[in-house]
Amino acid sequence: MKALLAWWEGLCKPSKFMRFVDVNLRGIGQVMFQDNPLSGLLFFIAIGWGSYAAGVPQVAIGGLVALLAATLAAYWLRVDEAALNAGLYGFNAYLVGLALTTFMAPSTTMWVYVVFGGAVSVVVMLAISNVFKTWSVAALTAPFVLTAWLLLLATNTFSGLDGGALPPVGKIEPIAAAAADPLRVGDFVGGVFTSITQVFLKGHGPAALLLLAGLAVNSIPSAIFALVGALVAVITAHLLGAESELITAGLLGFNPVLTAIALGAVFYQPSPRVVVYTLVATVLSVIVQGAMMTFLTPFGIPTLTATFVLVTWLFLLPRLKLK
Amino acid sequence: MKALLAWWEGLCKPSKFMRFVDVNLRGIGQVMFQDNPLSGLLFFIAIGWGSYAAGVPQVAIGGLVALLAATLAAYWLRVDEAALNAGLYGFNAYLVGLALTTFMAPSTTMWVYVVFGGAVSVVVMLAISNVFKTWSVAALTAPFVLTAWLLLLATNTFSGLDGGALPPVGKIEPIAAAAADPLRVGDFVGGVFTSITQVFLKGHGPAALLLLAGLAVNSIPSAIFALVGALVAVITAHLLGAESELITAGLLGFNPVLTAIALGAVFYQPSPRVVVYTLVATVLSVIVQGAMMTFLTPFGIPTLTATFVLVTWLFLLPRLKLK
Amino acid sequence: MKALLAWWEGLCKPSKFMRFVDVNLRGIGQVMFQDNPLSGLLFFIAIGWGSYAAGVPQVAIGGLVALLAATLAAYWLRVDEAALNAGLYGFNAYLVGLALTTFMAPSTTMWVYVVFGGAVSVVVMLAISNVFKTWSVAALTAPFVLTAWLLLLATNTFSGLDGGALPPVGKIEPIAAAAADPLRVGDFVGGVFTSITQVFLKGHGPAALLLLAGLAVNSIPSAIFALVGALVAVITAHLLGAESELITAGLLGFNPVLTAIALGAVFYQPSPRVVVYTLVATVLSVIVQGAMMTFLTPFGIPTLTATFVLVTWLFLLPRLKLK
Repeated sequence: MKALLAWWEGLCKPSKFMRFVDVNLRGIGQVMFQDNPLSGLLFFIAIGWGSYAAGVPQVAIGGLVALLAATLAAYWLRVDEAALNAGLYGFNAYLVGLALTTFMAPSTTMWVYVVFGGAVSVVVMLAISNVFKTWSVAALTAPFVLTAWLLLLATNTFSGLDGGALPPVGKIEPIAAAAADPLRVGDFVGGVFTSITQVFLKGHGPAALLLLAGLAVNSIPSAIFALVGALVAVITAHLLGAESELITAGLLGFNPVLTAIALGAVFYQPSPRVVVYTLVATVLSVIVQGAMMTFLTPFGIPTLTATFVLVTWLFLLPRLKLK
Repeated sequence: MKALLAWWEGLCKPSKFMRFVDVNLRGIGQVMFQDNPLSGLLFFIAIGWGSYAAGVPQVAIGGLVALLAATLAAYWLRVDEAALNAGLYGFNAYLVGLALTTFMAPSTTMWVYVVFGGAVSVVVMLAISNVFKTWSVAALTAPFVLTAWLLLLATNTFSGLDGGALPPVGKIEPIAAAAADPLRVGDFVGGVFTSITQVFLKGHGPAALLLLAGLAVNSIPSAIFALVGALVAVITAHLLGAESELITAGLLGFNPVLTAIALGAVFYQPSPRVVVYTLVATVLSVIVQGAMMTFLTPFGIPTLTATFVLVTWLFLLPRLKLK
Repeated sequence: MKALLAWWEGLCKPSKFMRFVDVNLRGIGQVMFQDNPLSGLLFFIAIGWGSYAAGVPQVAIGGLVALLAATLAAYWLRVDEAALNAGLYGFNAYLVGLALTTFMAPSTTMWVYVVFGGAVSVVVMLAISNVFKTWSVAALTAPFVLTAWLLLLATNTFSGLDGGALPPVGKIEPIAAAAADPLRVGDFVGGVFTSITQVFLKGHGPAALLLLAGLAVNSIPSAIFALVGALVAVITAHLLGAESELITAGLLGFNPVLTAIALGAVFYQPSPRVVVYTLVATVLSVIVQGAMMTFLTPFGIPTLTATFVLVTWLFLLPRLKLK
């Protein structure tokens, strides 16, 4: 693996174009915290596969378009080069692109919107990073969430923007117990896998293997915590009596997956106490995802990764020394 | 009083168990800013009385269970000892326990939830404290409000969690003038007293005397400002034409009570200008409580002490030198 | 112009009363960032004209009353004199006064509310300024937005406060394409002008000329960016298919106008890159205004200048060196 990366870096050094490719691949890798072009490539293929299989190839293209717009915007804004080269100005844009094309009906205006959203996400990233730098905490995917929420909410005011695939605006109603079927083994495994792919807004089980591979090539602990996060999420959601379809679609699990990777493998050094701390945060992420879905019901917008951002901030801000 | 405390501290010094009891009592005392085990004990008895009288003894027990979970979590997290010993990691948990058992139907899952919520409130306290330390302002009960809101909102998504006693989800509608009956003297006095007990989510007039006693044993100004806050709240709410039942149940008054104690007796040195400043904030708390109730109507969750937190932050953040 | 100002300053120096007048005029001028009493006077006349023409003279008076209350409160609180003399404690109060009298039915209680709101806005200004000072960013009109939202939301809870002119509480529904009529030339020009006057909550085209004059006497770039912001807003809103009546009433344009002035002429030094940056933020303000209107629909409160505050913060917080 190291030899492969060394070869790639050798390719990138002399060529501006290759470096541009590298930055964008790392941008995709950073969606799951991997500063590694191969991770990014595997994630990119997984999402391409997932969106092609679902008959919505525009989603994979939308992510790419927003990402390219963001990288160009970042160059134009002359942002910090080290952060740029690590892909830190790309992952929010990539997710913005996936979200806009997932929840909106395709149109020319939508594509302009995707480019605009990708570029703007860089400014939002700079803004939120500067605020949270005060407490030595990363912006995580907050720029994605804020940018996408604003752009999606606005579709209600402009007839040229069709947010037809947004969740319906509703009144908050507690679920009935009958909706929580017992999970069969297949559903269980499916829920674990889609929990991982929903990080990229896709419910496509097999693609999860590519995502796990993308994690593993750069960080085995990340892959492990992703899987553990998904398992914990499915079990917790089931024990608490969540609607079975929410579980099998991975909609209660993708935030816990991100929380588990972030706390277990990225921002703390693994240790027994960190594992316990991470598990508590992962379980909390399932509960908060339920809360977030409720909270957003009157607005008709998806939670995106707001739950992950909130819980991970809460568990990073104490700046505990967990050894 | 001093002799009594000295005797108590003598008891606590050699015994780990007694120190544990002391920390938890101070945790209850800190709900109303009193770092004093006797205050905590009196508050605890008051809430026990109130919840027993209302036929919901699980509420008093819930507060205690969450508090114990929080204290143990705080030890495990190795938080700052001085803050821990002053009860600063307990009061939010105690309130979380009261809130969960007040608004949810009893079940085994609820009790697991109470333990989990109490423990998590410590992390949330650490997080919010760290953020607000930047401006030398305390976290107040924001950790309670955030934790309880998230846990209560989530009950809508999970059929194993029954938030049956939550306020109904509604559409915001201005109240009709007819709902604002004239207040009779009994109602007036009742409103003042329940405004004080609602700080602990209980509408039980007589228990207010115990709460006032608990304040007075540690700080006479705190007791005075609690009473003044309640009086100002009932009068203001009545003059503005609030629904009479809201007033007599103390639901417009408990936030002003906390604001009055915090600004008048805890965070500023009492002086004529501080009194005026505190009165303005207290009146504003009545209005903001009206706003908060409106704002939360679409979500079907209670305001808890969010109003107090918001107004007190706004009046502490200017860091004025009021003499 | 300079001679005029010198003469005025000569008048103010020896007289406490004249200095008081000066501070208040600058307070009105600061609504559009102009630390200039003549700007304030022209704005004041424009709003007086607009509210008289609309048959609601109480609006202009309400702004003045809240402003005077704020200035007196600022003296009493002994705030920083330089900031006070520059009118920085007045503009939020002036807007609070305009908003309360615009959205509430006149009554004695309303006038008490106006005085109270104006005075409280000073504390809120101090609080928000202190927080954002951490990142060297101004509070903008956030104190106005927060204060007015709270006071307006509360009208639903108190029958003595009649928020009869508030937007109706509604369910979020995407607009139909049919509502987006083609704009005729007259509508287009009208939309540009009302976009400028809606900064002061008034839709009165001709008064925009006075506002532009008020800007120009102190800062030609401010006047130009106000006009450019309004133009960009009307064009963007129309291209995205906004409801024509929203456009012609200026309701999608006043936030972009403020964003354009703030970024283009106040907080950055004008340059080609700043112009591009400002235009992106201006277009984003149109979109975010659409989002904000959607977001507030369940609460039945107006957006006020929340959009401007959010977008301008996002574009100031990166603290970029754009030359």
